[in-house]
Amino acid sequence: MKKIVKFGGSSLANAEQFQKVGEIIRSDESRRYVVPSAPGKRFDGDTKVTDLLYKCYNTAVEGEDFIPILQEIKGRYYEIIRGLNLDLSLEDEFAQIEADFKAQAGTDYAASRGEFLNGKVMAAYLGYEFVDAADVIRFDKNGNLDAEKTDRLLSKKLAKCERAVIPGFYGAGEDGKVKTFSRGGSDVTGSLVAKAIKADLYENWTDVSGFLVTDPRIVKNPEVIESITYRELRELSYMGATVLHEDAIFPVRKEGIPINIKNTNRPEDKGTFIVESTCKKPKFTITGIAGKKGFCSINIEKSMMNSEVGFGRKVLQVFEDQGISFEHVPSGIDTMTVYVHQDEFEEKEQQVIAGIHRAVQPDFVEMESDLALIAVVGRGMKSTRGTAGRIFSALAHANVNVKMIDQGSSELNIIIGVENRDFETAVKAIYDIFVITQI
Amino acid sequence: MKKIVKFGGSSLANAEQFQKVGEIIRSDESRRYVVPSAPGKRFDGDTKVTDLLYKCYNTAVEGEDFIPILQEIKGRYYEIIRGLNLDLSLEDEFAQIEADFKAQAGTDYAASRGEFLNGKVMAAYLGYEFVDAADVIRFDKNGNLDAEKTDRLLSKKLAKCERAVIPGFYGAGEDGKVKTFSRGGSDVTGSLVAKAIKADLYENWTDVSGFLVTDPRIVKNPEVIESITYRELRELSYMGATVLHEDAIFPVRKEGIPINIKNTNRPEDKGTFIVESTCKKPKFTITGIAGKKGFCSINIEKSMMNSEVGFGRKVLQVFEDQGISFEHVPSGIDTMTVYVHQDEFEEKEQQVIAGIHRAVQPDFVEMESDLALIAVVGRGMKSTRGTAGRIFSALAHANVNVKMIDQGSSELNIIIGVENRDFETAVKAIYDIFVITQI
Repeated sequence: MKKIVKFGGSSLANAEQFQKVGEIIRSDESRRYVVPSAPGKRFDGDTKVTDLLYKCYNTAVEGEDFIPILQEIKGRYYEIIRGLNLDLSLEDEFAQIEADFKAQAGTDYAASRGEFLNGKVMAAYLGYEFVDAADVIRFDKNGNLDAEKTDRLLSKKLAKCERAVIPGFYGAGEDGKVKTFSRGGSDVTGSLVAKAIKADLYENWTDVSGFLVTDPRIVKNPEVIESITYRELRELSYMGATVLHEDAIFPVRKEGIPINIKNTNRPEDKGTFIVESTCKKPKFTITGIAGKKGFCSINIEKSMMNSEVGFGRKVLQVFEDQGISFEHVPSGIDTMTVYVHQDEFEEKEQQVIAGIHRAVQPDFVEMESDLALIAVVGRGMKSTRGTAGRIFSALAHANVNVKMIDQGSSELNIIIGVENRDFETAVKAIYDIFVITQI
Repeated sequence: MKKIVKFGGSSLANAEQFQKVGEIIRSDESRRYVVPSAPGKRFDGDTKVTDLLYKCYNTAVEGEDFIPILQEIKGRYYEIIRGLNLDLSLEDEFAQIEADFKAQAGTDYAASRGEFLNGKVMAAYLGYEFVDAADVIRFDKNGNLDAEKTDRLLSKKLAKCERAVIPGFYGAGEDGKVKTFSRGGSDVTGSLVAKAIKADLYENWTDVSGFLVTDPRIVKNPEVIESITYRELRELSYMGATVLHEDAIFPVRKEGIPINIKNTNRPEDKGTFIVESTCKKPKFTITGIAGKKGFCSINIEKSMMNSEVGFGRKVLQVFEDQGISFEHVPSGIDTMTVYVHQDEFEEKEQQVIAGIHRAVQPDFVEMESDLALIAVVGRGMKSTRGTAGRIFSALAHANVNVKMIDQGSSELNIIIGVENRDFETAVKAIYDIFVITQI
């Protein structure tokens, strides 16, 4: 049994959190590979180490005195080291960082030091081997992850390590120059390591007890999802739900390795299992509700359009020519509507409208902005009749005007368009009907 | 006040029906322009005159003796003439037809004689001028209606006729050769005449008291729609509801002329008004329900497709390249579904699937056949919250599995996909909830 455990910044913010992490790792000896983030906030209003590093490096680039900020960062690590009673010196590492900052080694390099140093501390604390991510995570010339090479390097290296700490968030190009993932990228590192070692489980430890049914900023204390498929997760993530970095799913999904989202502060909670597929019935008919504001719709009407071969293709071509991706294309008879991101669309609005007129000579084009899209996602919906009825009855009761409905053959989700101002009301209403009242 | 009145074949099947028509026309002197169809069935199992004409002409073309069939047709007209006590001879006309059939004057010519002769009878019966449609309805070289020329010819001719009968269903090309519309084309003639004379109303007399909320073969004695917009009608017609020829809408719609569907056998019934727009609240939230069987869906899944500019366009291009028009493209996240006509799709299935693979490298393509689409149409839906909820609750109660939902920004219709076998159940359930129980 091999588990890879990744800890987020809040799980590693100070010595107390490190101790919790230590207990967690030592309580299960299959937790053999550890991916730490950089230390996060210790309290509200605190600054994450990564943000301090950005600030420090920018100061260096501007030719000003960055040493005080570097001292502050060093202080953070030594606070942890002392709190853990470790016999560990980071003087060489900080001397190197100081020299590299002076030599302007790059923003990515600067940002990556938070994980690098935390990895050193973690390795010393656990007695695990330290593996520098720069040696095993490889980016190609275009700055994209070289998944194949990374997998080769990681497998080769970790085959020789019984237990190791691999700092998250970064890797290096062929030239050895450090390069980071986008923020939250330690999730991706964890996933790459899991794939390389063919882990049985990828535990992703954070400060919530799993993935929530909906956004806690909209619904107070929403229920935790017990199990969710990669597919469902991807759909909820796409629509704005966030816990895991989007790119973290693909490597483990390919190998069928489940991810378990766990809470460092409540390790007894089961958390959420993210799996390829499961027979397990979901607790509620729906798995989750997510959504985003800021869409607009372009409604195109033309008599007989349904019989016109190529009509839809021509319309979408106009959007493509302007580099605009569409979200949904609900259609009636003689009418089709294209949903796009408002910010992408606004500056090209007139070109698109003109293009549509040229391409298909519509009878009528109408636009509506400030729309939100809500995705109600759930593998349980397929086998439960009446899901759509419950959703739309709930929305009607909540006085929400439904602007768009889209449900394809996957029957895994229903997409609903509402006005921005109805967004929170709609999400609450759907949550209520499926989770609270369960009528 | 100028009204144009068009009578269908069942309204003119025999002398008794002619008398009803005569009473209707004489009871309102604004009914100045009359478009008759050919005599329809007098009783169950009877043959329409148009069908006799096709049979007769085919016999002539095959070089066999067609005179007995022509005699039968002549008998039909003389039965009407005698029943109306008219002093009218059609001997010259029948002699001409016999000669033309021998000379193989064409199927269109043959079919058109039913209306031509009925026009002669109607003109004599009413004392109206007879205007041969071949002189005023013009087709272009490609066999399409030349709308402009027709409008010019009709206006010019009818400006000089206080009252006239113009037979339906046919016109002629530039060469004078008779050409017909597709079946039911007398509706189109009526519409063209209405436009040309700038009629105040186009009365379309038939054997039902208007347009029904749904198909009487599915729901027994469905309610009559009091008023319906052109738009709604077009949508219901497209989805399989039939009363009026599809092409009959455009000419009058352009001029804002309302159409009134009336019942020759119950002239006191108000019938259905088809209008450009109306403030009149519809009697029920929905205006009508129509649907068609025989669709199939192609469900395409690919991770990250939503972020791929051009994905949807490329998929639709594949269908276009195979000459297949799509009906709807509901989409989720990482999934899009294309609904097409099964008969159009089946023979090209493999080319389309291969094309999709080549064009977008999907993760997964799945097809489902034997699906039906149902359109729930109504201008009242926009202002009534909860319509969707009622529909889907009703379908859930009826144990109908909803395969697809599509509602665009027009909010004028919701398209629902179900399995063929659930089609009738679904239509009944929707009718029940909105019309019968009105819960």
